[in-house]
Amino acid sequence: MMKKGLLIVNTGNGKGKTTAALGMAFRALGHGMRVCVIQFIKGSWKYGELESAKRFSDLLEFHVMGKGFTWKSENIDEDKAAARDAWDFAKVKISSNEFGLVILDELTYLVKFGMVSEEEIMDILCKRPQNLHVVVTGRYAGEQLIANADLVTQMVAEKHPLKNGIKAQKGVEF
Amino acid sequence: MMKKGLLIVNTGNGKGKTTAALGMAFRALGHGMRVCVIQFIKGSWKYGELESAKRFSDLLEFHVMGKGFTWKSENIDEDKAAARDAWDFAKVKISSNEFGLVILDELTYLVKFGMVSEEEIMDILCKRPQNLHVVVTGRYAGEQLIANADLVTQMVAEKHPLKNGIKAQKGVEF
Repeated sequence: MMKKGLLIVNTGNGKGKTTAALGMAFRALGHGMRVCVIQFIKGSWKYGELESAKRFSDLLEFHVMGKGFTWKSENIDEDKAAARDAWDFAKVKISSNEFGLVILDELTYLVKFGMVSEEEIMDILCKRPQNLHVVVTGRYAGEQLIANADLVTQMVAEKHPLKNGIKAQKGVEF
Repeated sequence: MMKKGLLIVNTGNGKGKTTAALGMAFRALGHGMRVCVIQFIKGSWKYGELESAKRFSDLLEFHVMGKGFTWKSENIDEDKAAARDAWDFAKVKISSNEFGLVILDELTYLVKFGMVSEEEIMDILCKRPQNLHVVVTGRYAGEQLIANADLVTQMVAEKHPLKNGIKAQKGVEF
């Protein structure tokens, strides 16, 4: 049976991957959809959006995973266990049938760093409830993810303020 | 004097230009910033985000310009007058010093279709209040706009659901 929910991937080295996912959440919430955001790397959602999210507490769930995912740990087993826990949590949310949109923010790094296999992730994504839209963000989107996605956008940085010596600004925060 | 507010351009043929701008609005609103969105092409902001925007009526102004900008008009003089009115309105908002973020959604088309000159637009953008962030979205970003921007992101479509024969979905709506 054809899925009605789309699998969307925002990848590439530019800005706007998480920001565009945020915009999709904003849009979906306006339709009264229930939205679940799972952040796999601590800190990709920042103060601004967390404050704004409070205005949608009736519809929006926000979960910060990856407490230990600084990717600087010297204990790879601990990192893998934390990644596994995060993914197990995400699986429950994806399969719950409670949401219209699930955002898996920076999920790609779990595959990139060998924490969870792409096969396992794709298996769950392909078996998701048929009306569920899923957005995956992060660099290094894998081949299977791209092959199965309905929409893939590459965000390509042409100019970046940090390269120009301008520091990230509060409220916009690149 | 160095501006603290950034000039940001989301361009390219992919999805996510307006959506990423929406995400920036969501973020800025969370910081309590006042945000003004000016939509130069009718319909680029849709039902979902308009409904969500209502939850920020204390901080967010939303203006739909371009009543006549279907770009299908046979009356080019009428189109030009409407574009001029829209730009004049935007100028007031940009210069007002009332906002932390102004989003000029699909502004690029005014230049592309010869409605307003790039020189005039850049003059106003470069003279904006120094703490004001401006986001310009749309395909065909002009050379001067790119040259003066602090951040330019090209959204590049790798896969698009319409190309795969899947219709746009309510709540996500590409």
